[in-house]
Amino acid sequence: MITVLTGGTGGAKFVDGLRQIIPPEDLTIIVNTGDDMLWWGLHISPDIDSILYMLAGKISEERGWGVERDTFFALKTMREMGEPGWFNVGDRDLALHILRTRLLADGNALSEATAEIAQRLGIEARVLPMTNSRLETRVLTAAGELTFQQYFVQRRYQDEVKAIRFAGASGAIPAPGVLDAIRSSRQILLAPSNPVTSIGPILAVPGIREALRETNAPVAAVSPIVGTTAVTGPAGALLSSQGFAVSIAGVADFYRDFLDLLVVDEQDANAAAELRDRKESSDAPHVHVTSTIMRNNNARIALAKSTIAACHQFSSTLSAAQQA
Amino acid sequence: MITVLTGGTGGAKFVDGLRQIIPPEDLTIIVNTGDDMLWWGLHISPDIDSILYMLAGKISEERGWGVERDTFFALKTMREMGEPGWFNVGDRDLALHILRTRLLADGNALSEATAEIAQRLGIEARVLPMTNSRLETRVLTAAGELTFQQYFVQRRYQDEVKAIRFAGASGAIPAPGVLDAIRSSRQILLAPSNPVTSIGPILAVPGIREALRETNAPVAAVSPIVGTTAVTGPAGALLSSQGFAVSIAGVADFYRDFLDLLVVDEQDANAAAELRDRKESSDAPHVHVTSTIMRNNNARIALAKSTIAACHQFSSTLSAAQQA
Repeated sequence: MITVLTGGTGGAKFVDGLRQIIPPEDLTIIVNTGDDMLWWGLHISPDIDSILYMLAGKISEERGWGVERDTFFALKTMREMGEPGWFNVGDRDLALHILRTRLLADGNALSEATAEIAQRLGIEARVLPMTNSRLETRVLTAAGELTFQQYFVQRRYQDEVKAIRFAGASGAIPAPGVLDAIRSSRQILLAPSNPVTSIGPILAVPGIREALRETNAPVAAVSPIVGTTAVTGPAGALLSSQGFAVSIAGVADFYRDFLDLLVVDEQDANAAAELRDRKESSDAPHVHVTSTIMRNNNARIALAKSTIAACHQFSSTLSAAQQA
Repeated sequence: MITVLTGGTGGAKFVDGLRQIIPPEDLTIIVNTGDDMLWWGLHISPDIDSILYMLAGKISEERGWGVERDTFFALKTMREMGEPGWFNVGDRDLALHILRTRLLADGNALSEATAEIAQRLGIEARVLPMTNSRLETRVLTAAGELTFQQYFVQRRYQDEVKAIRFAGASGAIPAPGVLDAIRSSRQILLAPSNPVTSIGPILAVPGIREALRETNAPVAAVSPIVGTTAVTGPAGALLSSQGFAVSIAGVADFYRDFLDLLVVDEQDANAAAELRDRKESSDAPHVHVTSTIMRNNNARIALAKSTIAACHQFSSTLSAAQQA
């Protein structure tokens, strides 16, 4: 059993690689829901949707989100009627949001609605929201406190970030299956998602970070930072806003209390060597160097294989050391 | 001020004729909501939608319902996900249902949501649902009790109708403005809609039938029956199921307690003469003969003009008789 923590589009690509090399019944995907929002009164879970569309083979690879070859006539009509139109909901995509909203209105928890939709889309891997509670990522900027999608989509992450908070986090409860998956998996993988606003909300759910610290399984993360910038999106600016270096060392620091293994890109071979040196005198993770840029499907598969192999290697080494 | 009672697609065509000859501020349209339903969790008001789309110039004239040149990708996706797909909601049409559902969820009454949507669509005439209460038309058949849209759209009105009832009618309250419009209008027009399931639900709202009886304004109906059949739809079978003749006399009987004037087609000249004879000894209405088949826009305008003129004539004659 392998458990992945993920959010965003980079995370979905990583999951796509895993999906192609792991039997679906052995794959549990814990997804960020801090970006969830009501949009025209419908419950939208952007990160869950990206995972569902990816696993169902429906995602628009061109855009990285939404359904391939989708149209946008409902959105256009909404704009004409004076409703907000900055979040790009396609007509085929809209069906999923309507179905989720109805399932929730019928009394299902988000995890139940997600399982129902996944089943209808023919998805066999287990997709779990991090929580059924409302936990909302808020981005404090000079323009005020924004929801993540306002910051990311509406304002194209141009605002300087003063602070991040996860509204509702203190009372949130991990969704059924989340803690068990972390405790009982053979490997835990953190996708190359934005640490602050994709993985951060998951870690903010009380109990999850503790489970990651305590699990016997190796915990590995793929760095979304290559060199001194994020592969895509605002991960660099967000790490920096939280006082972390925009580097693989910054990512290692962000996850320092539970991370066993950091998977970094070949471009970071020197930084990896420095991080290994640092390890001698600290709790820095092991470092595995491979190609992490997922330019095409082969690259996705190769990264998934390399990450799993490195995790396995780490466990074997640890086991041998313990026996010695 | 002219008030129209309407439902269905024939009613929308009649309203389109009126719209072209009456200033919008002088036109109040009271619409059947007995067909309203939750569809995928969204509140759909089929008859209000037809009126809104007609007044906004967006209706598909080809189909008689929905938005012109609409696409159906969300519907197709819903079907693929195992949701019911027999009600034809287009992608542009879907926007309206989502907006209404949100307005209702925000605490607006149906009449408020309708006014808000009408305003956003640039509609100046007043569109009123008959009631803000839940009143649901149910059709009893050998296949069980069906909602009107199940009977009409899903099963294409093939079932023999054993009975009709209006669930919730006894507790329903006319929407704000409905009784005032009936009491204070210069003319009340019943569109050539199905008397049983388009006008019938309106009459079933406590207070409306009484207001029609008591208003000083002439009440005129355009017969949806020409000869011995309905111009479109199941009006004939439904009248028959309620024990009324499928003829202009049957329509006159259905509305007998409040109708002053029945507008019938030229094909019914003989039946009109018989109805006029009957008037000598009963409460049958005056009869006005004109062309009622709305084959094109000119015919819609001509029917509207002829109906209004006949109403005016009726009032003048009555007034002269009272003065004599």
